[in-house]
Amino acid sequence: MTSKKERTREMILEAAYPLFAKEGFNKITMKDICDATGLSRGGLYSHFPGTKELFEAILVRIQEKEEMNFQKEMAAGMSATEILEKALSLMEEEMKQPDESLSLAIYEYAGSVSQPVMNDFTQIGFDKWSSLIQYGIKRKEFHSVDVFELTNVILYVYQGVRMWSRITDMTPAVFSSIINHIRKELLRNEE
Amino acid sequence: MTSKKERTREMILEAAYPLFAKEGFNKITMKDICDATGLSRGGLYSHFPGTKELFEAILVRIQEKEEMNFQKEMAAGMSATEILEKALSLMEEEMKQPDESLSLAIYEYAGSVSQPVMNDFTQIGFDKWSSLIQYGIKRKEFHSVDVFELTNVILYVYQGVRMWSRITDMTPAVFSSIINHIRKELLRNEE
Repeated sequence: MTSKKERTREMILEAAYPLFAKEGFNKITMKDICDATGLSRGGLYSHFPGTKELFEAILVRIQEKEEMNFQKEMAAGMSATEILEKALSLMEEEMKQPDESLSLAIYEYAGSVSQPVMNDFTQIGFDKWSSLIQYGIKRKEFHSVDVFELTNVILYVYQGVRMWSRITDMTPAVFSSIINHIRKELLRNEE
Repeated sequence: MTSKKERTREMILEAAYPLFAKEGFNKITMKDICDATGLSRGGLYSHFPGTKELFEAILVRIQEKEEMNFQKEMAAGMSATEILEKALSLMEEEMKQPDESLSLAIYEYAGSVSQPVMNDFTQIGFDKWSSLIQYGIKRKEFHSVDVFELTNVILYVYQGVRMWSRITDMTPAVFSSIINHIRKELLRNEE
């Protein structure tokens, strides 16, 4: 029973994601999500009391997944370079899909919630990147960069691209240049 | 006569800026701007046909002012380091005032206009920074960085901070770390 409930919950999050990405947070109603999932109102409400909680579940899932991947890979002793290259490829792929960016929805949602929720969200991203950078420095695969500084640059340059790629035409060369910058800052053999 | 008209226009832009920064683009009406400026409807409309044109005038003014400052300083042969330090101080001051960020308004506005306007806006910012970086490299004050890459990093890390500082608590240490990153990438004597 739990497993079916989990699967339905997962299906709701999957179906709701593109709605929020396309329309932002404010415009989306529980009815839109019923329509997208084929669930009845009762069915949907048994999982989430409203769009706010549903959207938060999407945010948390994204962050946890990425955080978990990094932690798992580091725990398994995978090379920092390999983990970095995977993460940068993923980041570049995401940059190429501005329509799938949740930036607008996050911005709208943040207007309706207390700051702490967004602070937690940012903190997970910060911890994820700074732990990878520290891991890479310890293994002598990365330059001895200022961890706090480079983590901030990575987080905010990424958010800047995610937002501006929705409102201007950005060429793939812009995305590559930014990915390259991060790579060059970290990898010893790239200079 | 022209001068009084210019001054009124300037006064309108000054008065409208904080409204857009605070409320975004969509919520602000011409009536709000009449109230903020003390102008009659007729008076305001003789300057701008609507909030769209008024907001565009604000964006253009900001970009032109910054662009002009850089160009003037370079033409006067000011050192690249000095121009950079001034620009970075200004940037850090702006970062500390999330309430004055137009990010939300730009985001909303961009949903209502054709992409070319926003592309022009981005292009001016790009030209501004890349010409300064080239100038500094030529004068051997800056490292021979990849101009395209670092310009993109500067533009988008700034936009990322401007947006996220509105929805999360960011400490001044975050701003300084980012400003420091840009400085270290460019200035020869900082490494």
